[in-house]
Amino acid sequence: MTAVERLSLHDAQSLIRDALIGAGTPEPAALSVAAALVAAQAEGQVGHGFSRLGDYAAQVQSGKIRADAAVTVTPTGAAALHVDAGCGFAFPALDAALAAGLPRAQDAGICIMAVGNSHHCGALSVQVEKIAQAGLIGLMMANSPRAIAPWGAAEALYGTNPIAFATPQAGGEPLVIDLSLSRVARGKVMNAHKSGKSIPEGWALDARGNPTTDPAAALAGTMVPIGEAKGTALALMVELLTTAFTGSAFSKDAGSFFTSDGPEPRVGQTLIAIRPNGATGYPARVHDLLETLAAMPGARLPGARRRAAIARARAEGIDVPVIYLEQARALAHGGATA
Amino acid sequence: MTAVERLSLHDAQSLIRDALIGAGTPEPAALSVAAALVAAQAEGQVGHGFSRLGDYAAQVQSGKIRADAAVTVTPTGAAALHVDAGCGFAFPALDAALAAGLPRAQDAGICIMAVGNSHHCGALSVQVEKIAQAGLIGLMMANSPRAIAPWGAAEALYGTNPIAFATPQAGGEPLVIDLSLSRVARGKVMNAHKSGKSIPEGWALDARGNPTTDPAAALAGTMVPIGEAKGTALALMVELLTTAFTGSAFSKDAGSFFTSDGPEPRVGQTLIAIRPNGATGYPARVHDLLETLAAMPGARLPGARRRAAIARARAEGIDVPVIYLEQARALAHGGATA
Repeated sequence: MTAVERLSLHDAQSLIRDALIGAGTPEPAALSVAAALVAAQAEGQVGHGFSRLGDYAAQVQSGKIRADAAVTVTPTGAAALHVDAGCGFAFPALDAALAAGLPRAQDAGICIMAVGNSHHCGALSVQVEKIAQAGLIGLMMANSPRAIAPWGAAEALYGTNPIAFATPQAGGEPLVIDLSLSRVARGKVMNAHKSGKSIPEGWALDARGNPTTDPAAALAGTMVPIGEAKGTALALMVELLTTAFTGSAFSKDAGSFFTSDGPEPRVGQTLIAIRPNGATGYPARVHDLLETLAAMPGARLPGARRRAAIARARAEGIDVPVIYLEQARALAHGGATA
Repeated sequence: MTAVERLSLHDAQSLIRDALIGAGTPEPAALSVAAALVAAQAEGQVGHGFSRLGDYAAQVQSGKIRADAAVTVTPTGAAALHVDAGCGFAFPALDAALAAGLPRAQDAGICIMAVGNSHHCGALSVQVEKIAQAGLIGLMMANSPRAIAPWGAAEALYGTNPIAFATPQAGGEPLVIDLSLSRVARGKVMNAHKSGKSIPEGWALDARGNPTTDPAAALAGTMVPIGEAKGTALALMVELLTTAFTGSAFSKDAGSFFTSDGPEPRVGQTLIAIRPNGATGYPARVHDLLETLAAMPGARLPGARRRAAIARARAEGIDVPVIYLEQARALAHGGATA
């Protein structure tokens, strides 16, 4: 049993902000990162929450994350933006992309935002939900250091390359879908590795392509894709839309999100915001279909568990492993990372 | 062994055009449909080729396909179009969407085309490749009569809801990816049913959710999705983007693509064309990644089999089952469907 301490979302966010500032991050970037990590933790995505802070801070201190990078936003058309994260944190670049992109989508009917030279973007659900909260349909893809082998090959070429979708609905919170193209998110293996647990069979293959339950062997090997050849075809699609399209590194060349040395990740994220056509009654029809789905015996409504976790976190706070809190508090008070 | 006859692509297209005209289709629509069916047949997608002609013709004759529908194209923003197929064939509406949408994507950086009140759209690969041939990145999704159950449920709610992607690359033909979210395309089950063959286990479930190798039982049941719960989450995403977004029928309410009576399909298709940012060297980097992929031991390059089939069909023609040719020739000479 890991020792945990309960924090309100507000206190958790302040603590992460202060820890990042302590590590040398300018306050606006620290605020952006803290908000994203706490939002991920609140929805139960612990692999994208507090567990990332120590590695982030160490990368700020080593200069692998340029925490003071100036984000540049360049329109490449009436409905298209290129955003250069400047090898800083992903979150300030994503904030800038959405701030510039959502009004364009409202005007033009759609806007695509290409974020390049970026870093770990955490839970995509957090970003696409912002699009849906603005009344637009959100799509997002991201690449990540290589983890999935092309179908038939043994060596990894693609990241777990997640796809996320969010949509507003009449009379309810947005529907949010967020899935990586590995059978499970690589963050879960990472988390098992950090907490010294083994992983179930079927999640990953070792470096020679054999099934493994050892998270260390899995991290040195590849993740099992969803849908066999179809899953790796989707991974290739996401790869091209997030790397070549954004001017970022291929997953095979991307530096680690975790180590404080080595090459920068230079990954990419691509977001699309779409305005529903007012004539189609879109939000009401989304609600109707989700009602139908929820009423089907045995059916699972995507995002229901996430929604419940967020409600619980807002009401009761979140349980954070003490080891992460001690690290955060040491950073916030000017100490070095472990 | 099915008796076949070899036809050039030109002769195949003329025959289908004449057959559709014989059934009562105006010539422009007949040309559009013929081009799409032959393109699908040429790339080996026989479930979207000649095998569809008899059912199409019967639906034109019964009025279920309004072959003389006037396609309307309504801009809903600088980078967005709504296209109403008017319950006619899908292909003239898709042609109109691309004709109006691709120049907008060139200008604005992206364009989304929502095609509503449509019919069977055949091989999505054929449509997205046109986008890539214009130097743009193409995405397409479509819904279809219900075939996949939500994860955990026994009854179908979603179509096989395919996703397709195409991209230009420097020094080579476009990369084209086209996959349905069922483990295999429903057209393959339909084709097995037409030719009296059984299907492999793992493709489909019967109406009570049990595995089956009988294509008739499979057509009355559901198709197995890729990726378990993740696959059905993707199916829900495609469902909303192609039905509520385009003003079309949900897959659960869509009429059959095959019978000449019953409600119209009224399905939807959504296409997105994206202009690569010239500053990122996009086409050359796509080529580089595909070269890397092709050089990996054991790796399968998506679309390679399709590309080979197209080259063979252009050089040698296509083998069409005689049963389909007799039907087509009877229609072309003013006869009724069988």
